[in-house]
Amino acid sequence: MPVVAVIGDGQLARMMQTAAIELGLAPRVLAADDNASAAQVFGDVRIGDYRDLADLQAIAEGADAVTFDHEHVPNEYAHMLIDAGINVEPRPHALLYAQDKLEQRARLTELGAPVPPFSPIASAKDASDFFERVGGRVCLKSRRGGYDGHGVWFPDSLEAFTELVEKLVGEGVELYAEEKVPFVRELSAMVARNRSGEVKAWPVVESRQADGVCRVAISPAPGLDAERAAACQGFAVKIAEALDVTGVLAVELFETADAVLVNELAMRPHNTGHWTQDGCVTSQFEQHLRAVIDWPLGSTEPTAPYTVMVNTLGGDSDPAVPMRERVAAVMKKYPEAKVHLYGKGYRPGRKMGHVNVADESLERALDVAEDAAHYIINAQWR
Amino acid sequence: MPVVAVIGDGQLARMMQTAAIELGLAPRVLAADDNASAAQVFGDVRIGDYRDLADLQAIAEGADAVTFDHEHVPNEYAHMLIDAGINVEPRPHALLYAQDKLEQRARLTELGAPVPPFSPIASAKDASDFFERVGGRVCLKSRRGGYDGHGVWFPDSLEAFTELVEKLVGEGVELYAEEKVPFVRELSAMVARNRSGEVKAWPVVESRQADGVCRVAISPAPGLDAERAAACQGFAVKIAEALDVTGVLAVELFETADAVLVNELAMRPHNTGHWTQDGCVTSQFEQHLRAVIDWPLGSTEPTAPYTVMVNTLGGDSDPAVPMRERVAAVMKKYPEAKVHLYGKGYRPGRKMGHVNVADESLERALDVAEDAAHYIINAQWR
Repeated sequence: MPVVAVIGDGQLARMMQTAAIELGLAPRVLAADDNASAAQVFGDVRIGDYRDLADLQAIAEGADAVTFDHEHVPNEYAHMLIDAGINVEPRPHALLYAQDKLEQRARLTELGAPVPPFSPIASAKDASDFFERVGGRVCLKSRRGGYDGHGVWFPDSLEAFTELVEKLVGEGVELYAEEKVPFVRELSAMVARNRSGEVKAWPVVESRQADGVCRVAISPAPGLDAERAAACQGFAVKIAEALDVTGVLAVELFETADAVLVNELAMRPHNTGHWTQDGCVTSQFEQHLRAVIDWPLGSTEPTAPYTVMVNTLGGDSDPAVPMRERVAAVMKKYPEAKVHLYGKGYRPGRKMGHVNVADESLERALDVAEDAAHYIINAQWR
Repeated sequence: MPVVAVIGDGQLARMMQTAAIELGLAPRVLAADDNASAAQVFGDVRIGDYRDLADLQAIAEGADAVTFDHEHVPNEYAHMLIDAGINVEPRPHALLYAQDKLEQRARLTELGAPVPPFSPIASAKDASDFFERVGGRVCLKSRRGGYDGHGVWFPDSLEAFTELVEKLVGEGVELYAEEKVPFVRELSAMVARNRSGEVKAWPVVESRQADGVCRVAISPAPGLDAERAAACQGFAVKIAEALDVTGVLAVELFETADAVLVNELAMRPHNTGHWTQDGCVTSQFEQHLRAVIDWPLGSTEPTAPYTVMVNTLGGDSDPAVPMRERVAAVMKKYPEAKVHLYGKGYRPGRKMGHVNVADESLERALDVAEDAAHYIINAQWR
């Protein structure tokens, strides 16, 4: 049976492992240390650095596919693995557009996908020109390495903007800016594509962020116009095909009063797809694995009218009540709540787990998932 | 988070592992060798023998609960672990009734649960007396150690019966006999019970055997009278409570023209419960873990009108088509089929995996699951 090597040791790799076991695959992981979320549970753990070519070569040896739980593997190393005959999925020529946001913006524009006005920013002059162009509605971003709100800034004056740009450029950070979008809500259109070109889309999800971090996902996005939903899925399919993406592609979107704009791309299982574990025939983790080994994709039919996912993000402090007792209290109150934990120690704001609830009633699913997650974080009900 | 030690290295332990990972538990397994189904995938594997007290003590050390994927651990060793302060679930005083079928028959009779007439058999005289009592409709069983049709005989004449008894008694096999039941079909009533006494029942399932091995399970049992279904669940709940079972209890039943009789008990996840992985809010593997660490139990609501499970049992020969290609062919034809494989090499009749299919149509679910399993076994469609 196929060997899948996962580079990256977080919860996404961890949840790929459970899907891989059920499929009978032989998974292995490249982890920074034995205590990492994924390293705790894989049977085959290789300790190493994803920025080290020798470590990448070692984990790739004999693997049917090499894939990722993050976007931070040097693109040139991925190319070198490909040149050595390794099946790296997604391929580096696709992954590039999840790694470099300026390249992504340029490519999406070529493809006719809707993106906000944007511009590379390398100087105070660039900053002031762009500030004027968008009427001061500026979102400044690092081209590379950002995630969960890191590498994103919203300067509220020209002075703050230029100061920030000078500081970051001085530190060697490559930047671009785009118009800050006055969105009504955020959506996520997720698809998977395998090497043979088969593509399947999940229902479009509404996502709710806190401090730049996904906190809630609701499937399907409540009240989303069917035509707009189909358009979002259409963008995602088009992007997956045009960029030759393999595996899961998450297209994060801004919904404004009268349009939808592409925000970010991720080429791996995504936080807004965790609901699929308990609300869909095929989870995003299983689908990603099927895609990267070029197996046919599974059904993306939901198994319930609504599924809500709420992240358990570390709170301002860690309550004295042990986690095992918090979980037990949630299970007692809500037998329908599906608790997923990542084996991570407490840190404020850290993604430590999530709760999925499927229900015929959106209101009830949201209420239960929010209350359950709140208790796991705070050891008290809302 | 709780540490759960699983004794036994088969597919049941393997599938407990995926559930344990999602719950954030720390699972470990006692396996006979590194290549065993469960040993391939656990992060924490201890090689040893479940019949060796020192190996049992070693795996139990520091575990919040010790549980099993089979019934073959010596009952006296389980008692010794309990005496040493280890939380063994199910407890040996309960497990006894899954280990010794004659004790089980006696206890079930005391409880008023419906069982066929039975008698211990230690001699040719016992055999001829029992043969006469049941009009020659004899099922002879080994008291201990049987599974999947092993340890069960259907002698078709008094002469064959007495010869068999003399041979087995001579080999030191402890025996009992019961009346062979003219059943219409087999049912399975599964429940889980935690140490605090909470009990939850799944829908009653129809199971279909081939050569004494479970081949198909259909949830819920088609056409089962609601009153009879409730009675089956009632037996299972009563048995779980009266025997002080913790974890999953499977009560295998014979349905006759006008009654239901208890066939076998298993105190662990069971083949007839595999459908819960893809057709129920809480899988039997998750539920078993919750029960043995005394967490509240999860909802046993189905997520589809029907779910069918078909085992992929090794066929008469192993086709030349590699398993990965068979799986891919099934996935292509049936995107809704959920394929589970156990990492086991081919052997005729061996349980190598199963396929679950959930659907609104029973006919379609059965058709797809049968065809998919048939292909995985034979590399050709039915």
